[in-house]
Amino acid sequence: MTSKSTVDLKPGERLDDLQIKGYRIIQSPGRFCFGMDAVLLSAFAKVKKGERALDLGTGTGILPILLEAKNEGESYTGLEIQEESADMARRSVLVNHLEDRVRIVTGDIREAAALFGAASFHVVTVNPPYMIGDHGLKNANEAKYIARHEVLCTLEDVLRESARLLENKGRFYMVHRPFRLAEILAGMSRHRIEPKRMRLVHPYIDREPNMVLLEGVKDASPRMTVEPPLVVYNKDGTYTDELLKLYGLDRQEKH
Amino acid sequence: MTSKSTVDLKPGERLDDLQIKGYRIIQSPGRFCFGMDAVLLSAFAKVKKGERALDLGTGTGILPILLEAKNEGESYTGLEIQEESADMARRSVLVNHLEDRVRIVTGDIREAAALFGAASFHVVTVNPPYMIGDHGLKNANEAKYIARHEVLCTLEDVLRESARLLENKGRFYMVHRPFRLAEILAGMSRHRIEPKRMRLVHPYIDREPNMVLLEGVKDASPRMTVEPPLVVYNKDGTYTDELLKLYGLDRQEKH
Repeated sequence: MTSKSTVDLKPGERLDDLQIKGYRIIQSPGRFCFGMDAVLLSAFAKVKKGERALDLGTGTGILPILLEAKNEGESYTGLEIQEESADMARRSVLVNHLEDRVRIVTGDIREAAALFGAASFHVVTVNPPYMIGDHGLKNANEAKYIARHEVLCTLEDVLRESARLLENKGRFYMVHRPFRLAEILAGMSRHRIEPKRMRLVHPYIDREPNMVLLEGVKDASPRMTVEPPLVVYNKDGTYTDELLKLYGLDRQEKH
Repeated sequence: MTSKSTVDLKPGERLDDLQIKGYRIIQSPGRFCFGMDAVLLSAFAKVKKGERALDLGTGTGILPILLEAKNEGESYTGLEIQEESADMARRSVLVNHLEDRVRIVTGDIREAAALFGAASFHVVTVNPPYMIGDHGLKNANEAKYIARHEVLCTLEDVLRESARLLENKGRFYMVHRPFRLAEILAGMSRHRIEPKRMRLVHPYIDREPNMVLLEGVKDASPRMTVEPPLVVYNKDGTYTDELLKLYGLDRQEKH
């Protein structure tokens, strides 16, 4: 466990335990809290020793922080367009004493390759907005709306910039919704981020999947693996063993 | 039950019960026998009342015969390039008294649209060769080799001809291997056979899928459904209830 730092929380913010290495994260329930998709993506992605990873649209910084906890990469960068979220993420980096390895940059996904330079990362992760287009709905919670709808960037923007940002054979990890799978796989192939690994997440084993985890490799040959289904709940509504393990909740019982 | 016909079996051939409507099929184990992929595809595909269906590369005619048994379509055509297989399929049609609704045509998938005319079918089914390219291996059993490898037609040929053969909003059903999923979905989209429904077939619930069932709709909008996994075996190695039902083996017990 790292020593506890004093934290500068703003109104509406809270500090949540991440169940790993004593890490904590600042969240603002009124704005946006990370979901199961971020946790599953952080377990699906791999950052090897010495590698540089970039998370596009990092929000509270959940992905870089969880990836740092689970991997031996050299550095983890989070790009976030909303300054208020980026500020929260930076304070979470400080809380966990990760300023040497995790940095949060305020900026636009659509200009990410120009910002960081071409082929500048070994790994790109992204938990993008799932819903197509901007339906004109501006609800009270703009931060949440931007995180969920393609208002500020589209799937095409994400794939184009990721392809530019990745070095040859660099790896791309994304979580998305299965209803867009055809568009996703076709788009990845078109941008030469060849789909190599896929896992569908089913709430129950006999239900349709509600998330898909994807790994693509820049300029790889076209042959992919579809993994066994990841199931969230047992029939009785309790979490499956695999899900508890991914959340670090199996370790907790041993404390 | 239909009345039993006398059957003209050639050396090496046998007559198998299809577990539905008393239908039987002529197969030659030395050449090629239909597999679980054909049975699952016949259950996944739907032919509505009055529709015309075409099966590309029909082999023994298993798909048109099973589809006729399960659906109320107007006609079922099977296209097969190998005359010996086509002849076997034609005799199976006669055995089951289906000559009014099922016809077997000898011909090349690569010229199918020219042969039948553009937009001439409501439904196209295909259980194509799974393996990429011709690796030069000409084993003793050429019929089996042609059925499994892209010697005489490629995935691209199948998609191009299917797109031409289907009328507007016509449906395309294919069974294939998951390792080619990215290529399949991208190819379908490119040929405007929009992927609309997908189901992965897993030997066991915790294993990788070894088949994928796909439905595409000609000129449809891009939004798809991924269905719950289809599992073949229970943990104890017995068939799952769903698989027995698809094979008609649940009905058998009630006889």
